[in-house]
Amino acid sequence: MGYSIAIHGGAGTILPSLMTPEKEAAYKKGLEEAIIEGSKILKGQGSAVDAVEKAVVVLEDNPLFNAGKGSVFNSEGKHDMDASIMDGSNLQAGAITQVSGIRNPISLARLVMEKSGHVFLSGNGAMKFAADHSCKMENEDYFYDELRHNQWLEVKDTDSFQLDHSESKKENKFGTVGAVALDEHGNVAAATSTGGMTNKRFGRIGDSPIIGSGNYANNQTCAVSCTGSGEFFIRGVVAYDVSCLMEYKGLSLEEACNEVVHSRLLKINGDGGLVAVDSQGNLAMTFNTPGMYRASQSNSDQMFVGIYKN
Amino acid sequence: MGYSIAIHGGAGTILPSLMTPEKEAAYKKGLEEAIIEGSKILKGQGSAVDAVEKAVVVLEDNPLFNAGKGSVFNSEGKHDMDASIMDGSNLQAGAITQVSGIRNPISLARLVMEKSGHVFLSGNGAMKFAADHSCKMENEDYFYDELRHNQWLEVKDTDSFQLDHSESKKENKFGTVGAVALDEHGNVAAATSTGGMTNKRFGRIGDSPIIGSGNYANNQTCAVSCTGSGEFFIRGVVAYDVSCLMEYKGLSLEEACNEVVHSRLLKINGDGGLVAVDSQGNLAMTFNTPGMYRASQSNSDQMFVGIYKN
Repeated sequence: MGYSIAIHGGAGTILPSLMTPEKEAAYKKGLEEAIIEGSKILKGQGSAVDAVEKAVVVLEDNPLFNAGKGSVFNSEGKHDMDASIMDGSNLQAGAITQVSGIRNPISLARLVMEKSGHVFLSGNGAMKFAADHSCKMENEDYFYDELRHNQWLEVKDTDSFQLDHSESKKENKFGTVGAVALDEHGNVAAATSTGGMTNKRFGRIGDSPIIGSGNYANNQTCAVSCTGSGEFFIRGVVAYDVSCLMEYKGLSLEEACNEVVHSRLLKINGDGGLVAVDSQGNLAMTFNTPGMYRASQSNSDQMFVGIYKN
Repeated sequence: MGYSIAIHGGAGTILPSLMTPEKEAAYKKGLEEAIIEGSKILKGQGSAVDAVEKAVVVLEDNPLFNAGKGSVFNSEGKHDMDASIMDGSNLQAGAITQVSGIRNPISLARLVMEKSGHVFLSGNGAMKFAADHSCKMENEDYFYDELRHNQWLEVKDTDSFQLDHSESKKENKFGTVGAVALDEHGNVAAATSTGGMTNKRFGRIGDSPIIGSGNYANNQTCAVSCTGSGEFFIRGVVAYDVSCLMEYKGLSLEEACNEVVHSRLLKINGDGGLVAVDSQGNLAMTFNTPGMYRASQSNSDQMFVGIYKN
């Protein structure tokens, strides 16, 4: 058996005209670092769950991406974070929503999967669970970023919210990070993490922590991690839809991802993308937006890092 | 076109030996009241969304069922409520989690669907949204019930939690209410509402507010509302699974429900049940537990009210 891994750092209106060479290089470096760390685990016979957690931790620790350290500000000037993880070998899953001060939400989601007896914990209760399990905390300074803060100040007294770390409202990016992997034992896993939307109100939950919508893994079919306009990904039950098209309709991974992202999601006006891996190690990185931060690697293919459509 | 409606009031170890004739009559009366109110809307050419909301409101207002007024106590002696609703005609959905003091969580879920621009709101944020929309509130006295309080006192200083309004720990019931309907315009809808688990900790969220897991509706296939061990229903993406088996594999509603409840769910040790209606008006009320409080009615069939397997 070989291994395969793919990651994303969000999708949206990511265009060369809105980018500088320095920013582009920084994003690519961030993606590379994450894929290298994930691959290292897989090459060493590690598990898919370990690999996707590690790749997402690296992205959460990078302030460029809207998850963990780089989380955007909500309407109260705080950081709400969501994450989920699923193990395709046993369909175990863990997810958390509306937590703050947690350095690596994806690791908390994994703790929920392995230690809570539950799948999905939220808010202060999830924070209590994190404290009981000595989860690594950070104070507000750790999450402070001048750019993000300015983005929030721009919109904070309005009803508008930004779907991501846009520097300009012309941009429309969905700030989520995620990873999928197949390990050499034949197991797949998926992990997704987000810092939500700038100026987000009402305790809004997107698709990132929703098993079936933003994240899904099943050894029988595939592992999927999504990024996009969360409401549409929930209504489309997108991640599980890819799996069902493979299991029930016999589509290949690529066909299933294309059907979901370029047809079913568009019918309800949803935009965004996903990364996916099947149990044979095939990879897909599919999006219907101008760009998606993404990278992949496998035992047979060199590292690929991409931002724009072509 | 005709109409069809089915409701549930939870599933689990519901056995004649654990019941009194008085309790049985009270449950049946509660189910009847809900199905009558839902049917009345459908007979009057009302919408499936209106019918499922109304049926669930009647169940939420009845202290016998674990939702709304009858919600159980969490580990802090409070009531956390979750609900979701989906309109199969346009795949719009609304859901709320971790709210308290709201008289009818299902109506708040509907407000989220129609007025928030989001799908899923949580906690204090959802409460703020409710207040902004003059959602009907009740004080703690409204939700107080001596039986429920005693159930909580029994377990409150332990780590154990009860999946439902069990009077005895020998019982294992999943306290959720739900409704599905097809209206005379050919539209389906689903609604699900719960008061969670007695002594529930850590802000645990079950499947009830999760679109795709505890609730799903799509005119192309069916509408589904679930009740059971929530963690397994999330991992199985149960409600959408029924829809996918119909859409992608060509199964009938009954075949799809049987496959999901009696095979796929059991493989991961999940127990519970669901009610479902397809776009032709066929109904299914499928469960793998000893009992499920349930009722149904259609333009061609008289009212059915059931509790036990046979």
